[in-house]
Amino acid sequence: MGEKTIGVALLGCGVVGSGVVRILAEQRQLLRERTGMTFDIRHVVVRDKSKARGLDHLPLTTDARAAIDDPNVDVVVELIGGTSAAREYIEYAVSKGKSVVTANKSLLAQRGPELFALAQENNACIAFEASCGGGIPIIEAIMRSLVANRIDALVGIVNGTCNFILTKMTQNGWSYEQALKQAQKEGFAEADPTLDVSGRDAAQKLVVLASLAFNARVTERDLHVEGIDRLQDIDIKYAAEMGYVIKLLAIAERVHGDQLALRVHPTLVHKGNVLADVSGSFNAVSVYGSALGHALFYGRGAGQLPTASAVVADIVNVALGVTPLAFKQLSVFSAANRPPRVLPIEELQSRYYLRLMAMDVPGVMAQITRILGENGISLSAILQHEANLNQFVPIVITTHLANEGSVRRSVMQLDALKTIQAPTVCLRVIDQPKEFAGN
Amino acid sequence: MGEKTIGVALLGCGVVGSGVVRILAEQRQLLRERTGMTFDIRHVVVRDKSKARGLDHLPLTTDARAAIDDPNVDVVVELIGGTSAAREYIEYAVSKGKSVVTANKSLLAQRGPELFALAQENNACIAFEASCGGGIPIIEAIMRSLVANRIDALVGIVNGTCNFILTKMTQNGWSYEQALKQAQKEGFAEADPTLDVSGRDAAQKLVVLASLAFNARVTERDLHVEGIDRLQDIDIKYAAEMGYVIKLLAIAERVHGDQLALRVHPTLVHKGNVLADVSGSFNAVSVYGSALGHALFYGRGAGQLPTASAVVADIVNVALGVTPLAFKQLSVFSAANRPPRVLPIEELQSRYYLRLMAMDVPGVMAQITRILGENGISLSAILQHEANLNQFVPIVITTHLANEGSVRRSVMQLDALKTIQAPTVCLRVIDQPKEFAGN
Repeated sequence: MGEKTIGVALLGCGVVGSGVVRILAEQRQLLRERTGMTFDIRHVVVRDKSKARGLDHLPLTTDARAAIDDPNVDVVVELIGGTSAAREYIEYAVSKGKSVVTANKSLLAQRGPELFALAQENNACIAFEASCGGGIPIIEAIMRSLVANRIDALVGIVNGTCNFILTKMTQNGWSYEQALKQAQKEGFAEADPTLDVSGRDAAQKLVVLASLAFNARVTERDLHVEGIDRLQDIDIKYAAEMGYVIKLLAIAERVHGDQLALRVHPTLVHKGNVLADVSGSFNAVSVYGSALGHALFYGRGAGQLPTASAVVADIVNVALGVTPLAFKQLSVFSAANRPPRVLPIEELQSRYYLRLMAMDVPGVMAQITRILGENGISLSAILQHEANLNQFVPIVITTHLANEGSVRRSVMQLDALKTIQAPTVCLRVIDQPKEFAGN
Repeated sequence: MGEKTIGVALLGCGVVGSGVVRILAEQRQLLRERTGMTFDIRHVVVRDKSKARGLDHLPLTTDARAAIDDPNVDVVVELIGGTSAAREYIEYAVSKGKSVVTANKSLLAQRGPELFALAQENNACIAFEASCGGGIPIIEAIMRSLVANRIDALVGIVNGTCNFILTKMTQNGWSYEQALKQAQKEGFAEADPTLDVSGRDAAQKLVVLASLAFNARVTERDLHVEGIDRLQDIDIKYAAEMGYVIKLLAIAERVHGDQLALRVHPTLVHKGNVLADVSGSFNAVSVYGSALGHALFYGRGAGQLPTASAVVADIVNVALGVTPLAFKQLSVFSAANRPPRVLPIEELQSRYYLRLMAMDVPGVMAQITRILGENGISLSAILQHEANLNQFVPIVITTHLANEGSVRRSVMQLDALKTIQAPTVCLRVIDQPKEFAGN
């Protein structure tokens, strides 16, 4: 083991960047022992030095290109976020043959293939473990550890903000608004939470994960996305009563051989499924591989140090030459990958949860079951609590496997009835994976 | 991406070996797409060709050294097991500069440092992902993905046989003997199950994992090991009543700064702890890192294809040059690593579960609580069901954090009482990790 110094340029020094600074300082000795290398931060690029509070001890600069060009910089770490400056600097760095570490899922979801191709051409690499699942090494697992598996499905809780909100709604019986407020107070949600609660952040992560898992050129447009922002606490309570927890899941699965069903939506997860126990800001990704079967990766999906843990691991593995070597040879986000054959959401086979507000009059249940039956939907369970006559009361129904198109048609027909108060709530259900139940 | 053919020699072709053959055949095209490489099995070394049933289509040989020496062999896969022939061939291979993939935790636990040093000297590498946790990429995670973390603790369910038996005892109310018989019937336990049920297999895996996590030269002698073979179903029932599940845990934790507490034993795991949900032959390892916090890796810990999934991943990563590069630079199992400062088990701080068989006479509870009190042990819960007077009845006690030495002393004193029927059962308890509870 030789002694080698690795120069790092940090573009952006917000929450995660400060975490990287902290880990590289605190674990300097440990990293030296483990790798034989010393990691020095040569430049910290900020937009405005006068606004970079508490960073005075760092080598601040506003000139990103000069920092990247410094011959003493071996690894460029992009933590600016967004898709404009970040893209410009990553393109600049890799075109100069400098390897880049980034946590930027938006950019990768938007232009992964182009950026990777540019890096390949210039003998540079892009490492992006921190882009999905925070500190959970899910990218590494899919790309390298599960390389011998045809991946059949990914099912993940990949947005800590949504999971925090849903956990509070479930455990404390709070409304969505109350839980969101608490998440903002505790720093788990932004002042404008749209990106998270709309499901879009989870969608971008799924684009990255599915691209790797299925060697396909997946884009956000291939996904069906529903957020948690219209979820009502009453549905969380009914779900609990029926043995389910509601989670925002990002799901990519292979159907009919080579079609992909790609979606992000609130989902009823059976309490026996290990994903049901993933609480608070934790993330987890279930992977179903042809050889491995079901595996699950669980940990902190966000936060300063967990995310920085992944960024520093990427820096180290770039410095070791391990990531560049893998990047060069593995068909990661390859330009040769084709767009997936996407299953239209109407053709999805799933189980469903319906909550109808029905007038409690004779014959209403017969109307409901007739419409469902005519659409080929068979019921798994019905829940209706006692109520006074002549009021709208909730009727909760779960179905066996059904076709989404038929379910949507049924809901339209149901909502057209005078005895039903529209809109009927319709959520998807996943069960305990078969694998998990027995042994 | 060039087209490259990688020659593989398979030493041993039992359950896992056949799985490797199968994956390399079935996923030939997938592996080529992902890596640009073709993997060819050049030799399958068996002890007796006439006994190698169903392997006639393979290039069988009994000459391991000739197979290793073949210049067309790039990777040697050792799946013989045990510590004699396996050791001989691994030493031979690496001394010739050939990289080795092995699943042999016994050998690594016994002579990891020597073998790794020999490989380093000869510019070869040893990959061993399949040695712990079957298909779960826990070795890779600890060595590379969590490289930026000081590891504070590992808590794992790493023996599928024991977990299968305990799950059956818990879910079906079976006795140990019944559950063992079923495990043997379903192929989850050997005819002689000693290695598994004694906790020794888990101990060997913990030696490997702890060596990596703590960069220390851990040996089996450093571990306190108790198996599941004397566990009684009644304790599983009482544990359940108190909100716990009994699991065989392998635990390595940093205490008092730089001491290591290393142990394998049946443990009461709080039902809120995600490890409590790891059922059947599944394995899981919780890792607590200084930056990452709590992370969990879950999946099939044994079985043909899951283990072969890890072996093939190792073959691929050796062929990519990625594992050799990491192996050369990371202080994996380094000869420079020191033996750990081991915490004597008597000094362990833990919570405990005691089941006493006490004569139901006046004053007996006073005697018990006096002895515990005098030894500085404070009670967390007591459970005693109604029973007839003048019989031995079970009294179950859980303690707050206590010193193991004091607990052992108390048990000796209790067992000396005429009103107590020895031996008192004493198990350790772990709670929901603090991290997991809130957010």
